[in-house]
Amino acid sequence: MTNIVVLGAGVMGSALCIPAASNGHAVTLVGSPLDDPIIDSLLATGHHPTLDFDLPPAIKAVKNTDCSAETLVSADVIILGVSSPGVGWAVEKTRSAEAAPTLVSLVTKGLQPTPSHNGVPLTYVDTIPQSLDISADKLVGIGGPCIARELALGFPTRVVFGSTQLGAATTLREIFQTDYYRIKTTHDVVQLEACAALKNFLCIGVSAMLGAHTTENSSAKNPVAALFNQAVLELRTLSEWIARASESAGQQATQDNMAFDLAGMGDLHVTVGGGRNSRLGYYLGQGEAMDSILQNQLLNVTVEGVDTGKCIASAVQSACDEGTLHHKDLPLTLAVLASITTGAQFEFDMAQLPA
Amino acid sequence: MTNIVVLGAGVMGSALCIPAASNGHAVTLVGSPLDDPIIDSLLATGHHPTLDFDLPPAIKAVKNTDCSAETLVSADVIILGVSSPGVGWAVEKTRSAEAAPTLVSLVTKGLQPTPSHNGVPLTYVDTIPQSLDISADKLVGIGGPCIARELALGFPTRVVFGSTQLGAATTLREIFQTDYYRIKTTHDVVQLEACAALKNFLCIGVSAMLGAHTTENSSAKNPVAALFNQAVLELRTLSEWIARASESAGQQATQDNMAFDLAGMGDLHVTVGGGRNSRLGYYLGQGEAMDSILQNQLLNVTVEGVDTGKCIASAVQSACDEGTLHHKDLPLTLAVLASITTGAQFEFDMAQLPA
Repeated sequence: MTNIVVLGAGVMGSALCIPAASNGHAVTLVGSPLDDPIIDSLLATGHHPTLDFDLPPAIKAVKNTDCSAETLVSADVIILGVSSPGVGWAVEKTRSAEAAPTLVSLVTKGLQPTPSHNGVPLTYVDTIPQSLDISADKLVGIGGPCIARELALGFPTRVVFGSTQLGAATTLREIFQTDYYRIKTTHDVVQLEACAALKNFLCIGVSAMLGAHTTENSSAKNPVAALFNQAVLELRTLSEWIARASESAGQQATQDNMAFDLAGMGDLHVTVGGGRNSRLGYYLGQGEAMDSILQNQLLNVTVEGVDTGKCIASAVQSACDEGTLHHKDLPLTLAVLASITTGAQFEFDMAQLPA
Repeated sequence: MTNIVVLGAGVMGSALCIPAASNGHAVTLVGSPLDDPIIDSLLATGHHPTLDFDLPPAIKAVKNTDCSAETLVSADVIILGVSSPGVGWAVEKTRSAEAAPTLVSLVTKGLQPTPSHNGVPLTYVDTIPQSLDISADKLVGIGGPCIARELALGFPTRVVFGSTQLGAATTLREIFQTDYYRIKTTHDVVQLEACAALKNFLCIGVSAMLGAHTTENSSAKNPVAALFNQAVLELRTLSEWIARASESAGQQATQDNMAFDLAGMGDLHVTVGGGRNSRLGYYLGQGEAMDSILQNQLLNVTVEGVDTGKCIASAVQSACDEGTLHHKDLPLTLAVLASITTGAQFEFDMAQLPA
């Protein structure tokens, strides 16, 4: 039996508790300071309100303020189960344990801008181990198409766990894998993390086709499929660019690019047509300006693809200027970036795509 | 101005007339012997009943029996616009022209079993030029995500034209490309054709996840995305296997596998969730046996993925026995084949996928 602590009681962190608990491990779900209403509900009735699901009673729910040092110290595995705005809290919480856990994993998706590395953003694989003072090979990234509620409902789900040395990902797989939660492993964790973050960003452009062309009688399948394909190809270009700047990527490149696997193509498939990034894209496709949408329909909503876009914008521009990236390979990326950086409408013409 | 004859007045052949006509070319749409009701409607009112669209008056509709030798002889380009059961008719019609046209193209998707080539099925690129007594470089294959009605409605659509020498595909692109119908070209036409045929077959397995897991409140996105990804990877394996046996593929392999492009991933994206192959998969996912579905809900319906499955079944088995293909790379393919060859239920467990 392994002691697992999940930090952050949002839908994804909470759903991830379920396979581990059903494998008989001891799971503690610690709410962030924003999660008090969720933990209150779990303590009162076992019901998770945003997941709309009753968590198994074996999962121990704890409020941030009630989380003892002992809980964290005794954890063999700590999962950062927050979305990107919560990373600071989750890292601080993990650091508060006197002894480092055997493994740290994260469901958080995002990139971090760095003044070093020629401005190329880095994934959490390059930044979180430093913050936690653990070696990079103890961090396991999680990617792939996984809507939290479907995982909670036990729908067959297949994801990918990655670590720079395969050992950590394999160990975590043994803890989490069930008959419905299937786990592939990779050592290409840098590209896994890059794809996981960038797919939210590119989803905005693909989903714009839904807003622009959906009618009562048609769901605009031709334009969506064309840009889905283009997004996957650009995901490859961008994730390889990020991996080249990463100290953790090293010789980890695999034969198959992650963009063509679960963390890229697979995750983009579930992201288009559902969630906040897709909603933003839909409104853009209807002709509304980025600024207007973020100040109205999506006011106070975290749209991770926008944050990712802001994070990569100037570095992509510099790389295009230097010739390490090429405009012709990134028409969709550049169109989404233009809308994010100017706050204007999303301008994209299929004719921009290469012949 | 180019003289274009499209053979077959089904939805795809008919929709394809529209961009060519709007570019000012002379387009004649010749109905197959089964298309008389469509041609009657076009002649009477201009309305295409199955496309549910009024074709531009510049497109000249002609019944099979009214198609003069002159119409065919004067054609610069002949498009085989039929689905696979109509190929025999379209080839005979093309051969009846005394002079071979400059270019022949086809929207037909399918594979042909061959006793030669170790039983590995061939694409139309290897078989149709022989039947027509033209050189292989005059044949242009068409792939990519294109629902005919969306093309007719002018939705932005992006496809790929392929020919063994790029010249033919480029020439045809100049004739057909409009602001809404965008065309990429490739010389990897064998893999293009292989992907175009195989995506119908693999769609059956992906769509089974919809039937197995869709509920009132959820559309089973996790299982569909996982198998969508797996299907694309198997599409690559199978299309490379077919290309290795093809005399037309030669040195044509491109850096990017076609499976990751419009004719593979892109077309699979529109195929899952719409059309006959997807309907078959849905019923299979609900637990019905293949034989029962084909004798009831889909009685007398051409399900091209089933025909493709029958065509490749024994060759895939032999290749696995010989070690030129590997079971571990093709779990979804083998599960769909098992259902097709036995007529039984579709048995698939996500745990079969590689770790």
